[in-house]
Amino acid sequence: MQRYKVTISYDGTDFAGFQRQPKQRTVESVLTLAVNKMAKNPTPALKVHGSGRTDSGVHAYGQVVHFDLPFDIPAQGVRRGLNALLPLDIVVTEVEQVTADFHARFSNVGKEYVYKISRSDFVDPFKRRYMYNFKYALDLELIREAMPDLVGIHDFSSFVASGTQATNFVREIFDVQLIEHATTNEIEFVFQGKGFLYNQVRIMTAVLLEIGTKKRPVHDILRLYTVKDRQAAPLTAPAHGLYLAKVFY
Amino acid sequence: MQRYKVTISYDGTDFAGFQRQPKQRTVESVLTLAVNKMAKNPTPALKVHGSGRTDSGVHAYGQVVHFDLPFDIPAQGVRRGLNALLPLDIVVTEVEQVTADFHARFSNVGKEYVYKISRSDFVDPFKRRYMYNFKYALDLELIREAMPDLVGIHDFSSFVASGTQATNFVREIFDVQLIEHATTNEIEFVFQGKGFLYNQVRIMTAVLLEIGTKKRPVHDILRLYTVKDRQAAPLTAPAHGLYLAKVFY
Repeated sequence: MQRYKVTISYDGTDFAGFQRQPKQRTVESVLTLAVNKMAKNPTPALKVHGSGRTDSGVHAYGQVVHFDLPFDIPAQGVRRGLNALLPLDIVVTEVEQVTADFHARFSNVGKEYVYKISRSDFVDPFKRRYMYNFKYALDLELIREAMPDLVGIHDFSSFVASGTQATNFVREIFDVQLIEHATTNEIEFVFQGKGFLYNQVRIMTAVLLEIGTKKRPVHDILRLYTVKDRQAAPLTAPAHGLYLAKVFY
Repeated sequence: MQRYKVTISYDGTDFAGFQRQPKQRTVESVLTLAVNKMAKNPTPALKVHGSGRTDSGVHAYGQVVHFDLPFDIPAQGVRRGLNALLPLDIVVTEVEQVTADFHARFSNVGKEYVYKISRSDFVDPFKRRYMYNFKYALDLELIREAMPDLVGIHDFSSFVASGTQATNFVREIFDVQLIEHATTNEIEFVFQGKGFLYNQVRIMTAVLLEIGTKKRPVHDILRLYTVKDRQAAPLTAPAHGLYLAKVFY
């Protein structure tokens, strides 16, 4: 028995999210199928464990999973074997042999999400699946002033979608950055945190965009912490701008 | 009657090329439908004239078309009206009112094509439709040494796909550039010329890649001009790396 830590990228467009669901094409189910096929379909079937879910339509270029194989093959062989079996919208970028105490979900100490925004009058056909097109004027200085309000340990009850299974809404955010790509007229938000609530990154992004368009006062995030009410921040930035970029161990 | 010069971008993935064909989804047919719908479907139907064809799967971010509208509406209104009617894989980026002597095809004096190549061990899910993934080692200095051989007026008989309707294979290339994007491990070839034969850019790209992998001597292009035989350069780089980038008037 050998455990493998596997880093994957996927185009979330045609997946119903990461987590296995009956009759849906999910990242977990497609990956589990490939891992079992590579291992000649053993009984019981091999399981794939992800670092956590991503929603329907959300992309990843640094999602991490682990699984155990009943034999010891070199990491590069696993990478090539899986890539030969996987469809083109999911790819294995790195494979490492790890000890049996490694767990993709329980061992991780933080994650980085990136939210990509294209700022154009019209939706660019080449970016339409991979960035949120936001055509309204944005005051990036206001956004930069607001971002530090997200950093630290806060009650994010106003930033969680209904349907969450969480009961504790306190989360820690390590860092929020805004990167400007002037030549392509794109920006991206980079969020690093210990863990995130359901839709939290997309709701935080929507709030930052409202601050940038002056629909919301620059330090309104502080008020949102105290009101603890999703109705005070009802917007959710669309899934197709969001990427799970890194999982920290 | 007012003539409009219209610049469009399209993701070629789901189009059977530019030119109208029975029972196929082509750029020309989708665009013609939108123009006629915007003009309330006049009789006889309005015609759209492109600067030239692009093949099935080839992209564009600077294709130019013209058409005449039976009324004079501002250019920005035409842009917004068409974009509201077009599917997301085609977008109008610029509209200009022009005089009746402008013709998208006959007035153009040159074109720029860009061929995008990703150099990765595996196909990146986010680039799979938009760049050719070339995983073999490339000597870019050899390619740079070969590129000037393409510039000038030459007989490109070895660089044309069968099925061409052309009878004269002499074409003029103004310039060939190689751009390196080191951070993303991508390169692109930029070809500017007066006009190009059927598949010429994709065949030239394949020849340059063969020179870069040392399968072909660095100045083999000069030999290809003299042998005038497609069998001497049988490869064609795939359509999904190619972009019609600019049309010059």
